[in-house]
Formats: sequence, C-alpha cells, structure tokens
Amino acid sequence: MNSRLLNNHALIVAEQLGELRRSAPLVQCITNAVVTNFTANVLLAVGASAAMADVPSEAGLFAPIASGLLVNLGTPHAELRVAMLEAARAASTSGTPWVLDPVAIGLLPVRTALAEELLWLRPTVIRGNPSEILALAGVGAGGRGVDSIDSAEAALPAARGLALEFGSVVAVSGPVDVVTDGTTDIRVSNGTELLTRVTGGGCALGAVIAAFASLGEDRLSTTVAACAVYTIAAEQAAAVSRGPGSFAVAFLDALAAVDADDIFNLAIIA
Amino acid sequence: MNSRLLNNHALIVAEQLGELRRSAPLVQCITNAVVTNFTANVLLAVGASAAMADVPSEAGLFAPIASGLLVNLGTPHAELRVAMLEAARAASTSGTPWVLDPVAIGLLPVRTALAEELLWLRPTVIRGNPSEILALAGVGAGGRGVDSIDSAEAALPAARGLALEFGSVVAVSGPVDVVTDGTTDIRVSNGTELLTRVTGGGCALGAVIAAFASLGEDRLSTTVAACAVYTIAAEQAAAVSRGPGSFAVAFLDALAAVDADDIFNLAIIA
Amino acid sequence: MNSRLLNNHALIVAEQLGELRRSAPLVQCITNAVVTNFTANVLLAVGASAAMADVPSEAGLFAPIASGLLVNLGTPHAELRVAMLEAARAASTSGTPWVLDPVAIGLLPVRTALAEELLWLRPTVIRGNPSEILALAGVGAGGRGVDSIDSAEAALPAARGLALEFGSVVAVSGPVDVVTDGTTDIRVSNGTELLTRVTGGGCALGAVIAAFASLGEDRLSTTVAACAVYTIAAEQAAAVSRGPGSFAVAFLDALAAVDADDIFNLAIIA
Repeated sequence: MNSRLLNNHALIVAEQLGELRRSAPLVQCITNAVVTNFTANVLLAVGASAAMADVPSEAGLFAPIASGLLVNLGTPHAELRVAMLEAARAASTSGTPWVLDPVAIGLLPVRTALAEELLWLRPTVIRGNPSEILALAGVGAGGRGVDSIDSAEAALPAARGLALEFGSVVAVSGPVDVVTDGTTDIRVSNGTELLTRVTGGGCALGAVIAAFASLGEDRLSTTVAACAVYTIAAEQAAAVSRGPGSFAVAFLDALAAVDADDIFNLAIIA
Repeated sequence: MNSRLLNNHALIVAEQLGELRRSAPLVQCITNAVVTNFTANVLLAVGASAAMADVPSEAGLFAPIASGLLVNLGTPHAELRVAMLEAARAASTSGTPWVLDPVAIGLLPVRTALAEELLWLRPTVIRGNPSEILALAGVGAGGRGVDSIDSAEAALPAARGLALEFGSVVAVSGPVDVVTDGTTDIRVSNGTELLTRVTGGGCALGAVIAAFASLGEDRLSTTVAACAVYTIAAEQAAAVSRGPGSFAVAFLDALAAVDADDIFNLAIIA
Repeated sequence: MNSRLLNNHALIVAEQLGELRRSAPLVQCITNAVVTNFTANVLLAVGASAAMADVPSEAGLFAPIASGLLVNLGTPHAELRVAMLEAARAASTSGTPWVLDPVAIGLLPVRTALAEELLWLRPTVIRGNPSEILALAGVGAGGRGVDSIDSAEAALPAARGLALEFGSVVAVSGPVDVVTDGTTDIRVSNGTELLTRVTGGGCALGAVIAAFASLGEDRLSTTVAACAVYTIAAEQAAAVSRGPGSFAVAFLDALAAVDADDIFNLAIIA
C-alpha cells in the first residue's frame, strides 16, 4: 500500500474508528421494535455500546449522560413519542449529539407530525433515505415505507436545505451515501445491495452515526466516517456470505474486525 | 427431472414464487414484539418486504396501500389492539388480503376477545397451530402457549367450520400443514422439526402467507404456495445446520435462494 | 475421563440439564424489547420454551401455570410494569419460581421504584451485574446502563444481604459469576468476553435461571446449574466463532448440543 495514494478522507475515517474503540461511546437508542436487537448488536460490534432508555421520565434523564442519542421513528407508539421528545430536548440542552431518523414519514400522520416537532429541536444529524429526506423538507410525497423511491442525488437539494435551515448534517442513504452540511457534500460509494435485504440495515446506521458523533464537533466528518466504516464492513461481509441470513452474521463479525488497513484499501470517499 | 412426474401443485407453487419475486409485495405486519425482526427478515429474504405500521391512526391508513396485512396476537398491548382492529377493518373494506394468527388464544382473555372481534371482520386467511384453531372455533380449551397439544388432523373439522362460516382459508400448522377452504383440503408435508426450535417459526409463516395472498384471488392456492416455499426452504436449511442458531441463518439464505427446481424436486403436496 | 476427579457440582449440573430437557419447562418472560427474540431462542435452544405473556390481565393468569417467570426491567413501559407486578404477585402466591433482573437500576427512577416494589414480593432469584446488585441493595450509585462498573466480588456483601433479607438466591454476573443464598457462595468461572459483545447476553441468562428454577427447591443449586450450562456453551461457541455475529449463532447451537461430558470436562465451579 502506497500511503501517497491514500485518500485524506480514509485517513480521517481510520483515525476516528480507532478513537471510537478507545472511547467506547454509549448510545441511547429510542428506536423501533423491529430493529432494537440488531441495532444494539451493531453498536457492540463496532466498539460502542447501547442503552435503550426509552421510557418517559427516564429518557430525558439519560440523554445528558449518554455519549450520543438516536431517535428513530419506525414504530412511534405513544410512550416512545413522549420519550423521544424528552430525550431530544435534554440532548439539545446538554450538548449530547443526536440523530433523527424520520422513518417512513410523509404519508403517515403520527410520525410526520412528530418528525416536524423534533426537527425544530435541531438534530445534530439527520439520516434517511431519499424519500424521507424529501418528505422532511416538505418537498416530497413520501414513500410507502422504508424502501426509497427517489435517488440520493435527487434528494440532495432538499438535504442541503435542511442542513442550512436547522444546522444539521444530513446523510442521505442509497447505493451512494451523500452527506452534506449544506455547503460541502461528501459521497461514500461503498456498500452492498445485501444491506437492503436485512431489516434495520439503515436504522442501525443511524445508531453508528450517533456513536461517531460523540468523537468531535466536526459532524460532517464523523458522519462520513460512520457511513464509511459501516458500508466497508458490509462489503467485506457480502464477500463471505451465501444470502441475507449469513450476511447479517458476517456483517457483525466484520464490524468488529474492520481496521485501518481495510479502510485504506477499500474506502471510496469523495 | 421428468416433468411428467411433476405434481401439478408444485408447478403452481413455482409459478407463484416467481410472481412474488417480480411483484415484491409490501406486507404490513402488526405482530408480536418477539418476532418482528425475524418476520421482516423472512419477508425480505423470500422477495417481499415488510412495513411495521402498527400505530393507531397510521395502521388503518396504511392497510389499503399495503399488498397484504398480517395481524398476529402474540403480545396484544393496548395500542396494538387498536391498530389491529383499525387495519383489519381498512383491509376488509379496501380489499387488501389479511391474515389472522390467533397466537395462544383460549386461556388468555385479552387476545381471545380480540380474536373473536377480528374473526367477524372475516380474515382472508387464518393461520394457527391446532390448539389455536380449535380455540378459535370455540371447540377447544386452548394451549398454554405457542406449543400445540393437538394434531393438525384433529383440528381439521374445526378448520373447515371456520372456513365455511367466515369465508376464510384456514392453514393449520404441524409436521404436516393442512390448508382448507372448507371444501377442499390440501396437505403440505415438507418441513423440519428445527422450525419449532426457532422462535417465530410459525409467526413468520403468517407474514409469508400474507405476501402470497397478494398474488391472486385463489387463496387456497396462494396459502399452499406460501407453506410449501417456507417449509422447503426450511428443509434445505436443516440439511446444512448444526443446531437452531445456524438453522435460522441458513433458513434466511435458503428462502432467498429457493427456486423452481428445488420446488419440483422437494415439494410433497397432496 | 476419571470420575474420581469429577467435581460434585459438575455432576449436579449435568443431572439438572438432563432433567430440564426431559421436563421442557415453559418460562413466562416479561422482558425488554431488545432481547425478547434472543431470550426466546436461548430458551428453545437449551430445551425449555418461552411464552411472552406480558399484557395486563393475562400476565397474572399465566404465571400460575408457567414453569417459571422472568421479570426483566430493561424497557419498563407502563403496560409492562402492570404486567410485571401482576405476574410476580401471582407467581409468589402460586409458588411459580421467578427471577428479577433489575436492569440499569440506580440512576433511572421508573425502574428503580419498580425494582423496589418487586423486591418486596420476594423474588426466587435475583440476577444482575455488580452495579445493579449494589443499587438494589441501596448501597451503590448504579451504573449508566448494562455495563457494570464494579467487580462481582465487590458486590458480594450486598448480594448476601439481599439474599438473607428477602429469602432470594442472588446471582452476580461477571467474568466469574457468584451465586449466593446469603450463607453459601458458589463461583462459576466459565464464560467468554464475547457474551458481553452480544446484546442480551445477561438478560437471556435470567430466563435460563428461571427455567432451571422449575427443577427443584434448591435454588442455589439450580441457579449454579443455569450459570454453568450457559457459560460452558458460551465457551464452546467462542472457540468456533470469528466475531460477535458468528458467536451468537454458535452459542444457540452450543446450548442445544451441550451435554454431560462437556460439563464434566469444562465446568469450573467452586
């Protein structure tokens, strides 16, 4: 490997991965019932840890001591909605970085109203598929669910607008992930189609983004690092899988094993 | 393979599997907390997709645009009960096929009352183990839980009665699955005991039945196809597993890989 | 293998494992949303079964007919809190052995108040990490979450105190598990660090302790057996794993396969 050829982005990603494993951030997750288990295992695998403190009267107390917070709207039952608002407010006040994942907003009224309320609390990072980002920006019609019907590039103007209006970094997921702070756009081109064949493939990325966000104030950089580590591990897992079942298992193994050399060799960030 | 020897059922199953993968139906799942993840992964593996739209005020809006709906009574918390009734009513009105899985009814009063209310909304398909089908028909005492204490054949008269009274197709799970519309009974004899060693082995089948039900009006046929694809993939997975953990992983891989030839070679349907 | 060298503890563990597989106890689990699936699969793998009867008005009816009950405070939503108290009361009255796992109590007020209320119902067994046991005994400050910050030995006086005051057996989890009835302490030194890299590694042990508690009145002995079978299977799984993903899969396979010879060969109990 010739270090002169190394992408500067890859160096930063590798450095942040090392820092994540040293600091082992604890991520509070208020997320949907489908992906809690996978999300916690992804966090543990990559070197962070998870606390699902998602009960009203506890969620807001926990957010200030968490390293990061994920608020995912996949199954927004009444108590979870209260806990989400409580935690997001406490995180915003105390400086805990937090990630909003506006799952399937647009058509569905409960989560759409909740997403708007959360948006005004200025999430540190917003992560979604193109449909969700378009819906959040109020310019799209939303999708039927977690499957996106718009390309990431098509959602980029909306993402930039959200970033500038709310001071958030916005990550739009797709075959190429685009991360923007409204001014600078960075694309992570790693990944595998198998990530879309495992439920929670996108949701757990939101938790990893929250973990990396604990590492420093440059959330454009930490979000790119999260996307890169996640999708590089996914590529490695795809190479040794026989289908979506073995992929999910290999992905957790790869998240635990991925190292700086893998990132230098595989990262496609520009 | 000599096509003259092919069972006509196997041809229909193979055709429906191809059609399912082309149409990629989106199945709304209102199901229990234990199996949400496995259920979504099973749907993704077989070629469908899942949306857990299970919140009141959203569930009823979603059902008309879903390809199919699963209502599973495993952990019927208050909001889920509202969402189930809302979604089942909307599905019945809009023509979305829906599956009722009356988990562990009989002894337990909350779910038993709910199952009766849902029954009057005329589920497209009812799937259960023999105890649950007997309890639903009001002729059994129910079991202690998800483990069935009656044979599928013993529950067949009750299944036929439910089918005729409510216009539903009824699938009774067991070592041999029996599917009936009240007049015609079809038996699927594929499967493996390992399916009973993985939680959600029966519950996820309900979601697959809902996915196949989106393919056409002959729900006796689509339900048989769902049972056959599911249990054939389970047989293939069992052949390469070392226990219940590796079986669950191999099962998802097999659901994604199972093809027409596998069905021709392995299906035991009569 | 020279039987004269066998630890008497190992003989008892092996005998209880055989008895568990013969009786196939049904464990009612009222547990957190993150680990329901893994917990049920662990119970099925080891030879028991699971029923997540966690809805108010059903939980209390179910407890008397369950073989054992687990009450885990990981995500104590309002309905779960009602169900937990209902089930614990019914279990105490009817003689069903039950396990309290006071997840992350100390700092968080909802679960801490609930843990105290449950404690007065005199759990058959209490299982926790050192921080949780210290917090339950009112002598510790609690941790941030499921990661323990005190050693098991440091929590042993608190564990003994709880055991004597409430008539419970107390299991403190750590690299060495310590089980005490207040008078006698038994240490199980099997295990692997990988158990801490899979979410629910501790929570599912609580369910296995409830399953073994159904085997007899000597709950010091049944709890030691549960810890030993669990951690020996974990060691076997670690030996064939490439990371936390493949470990979790291999662990379920190992729980299903572990036998008396494995216990004789591997158990470190004193």
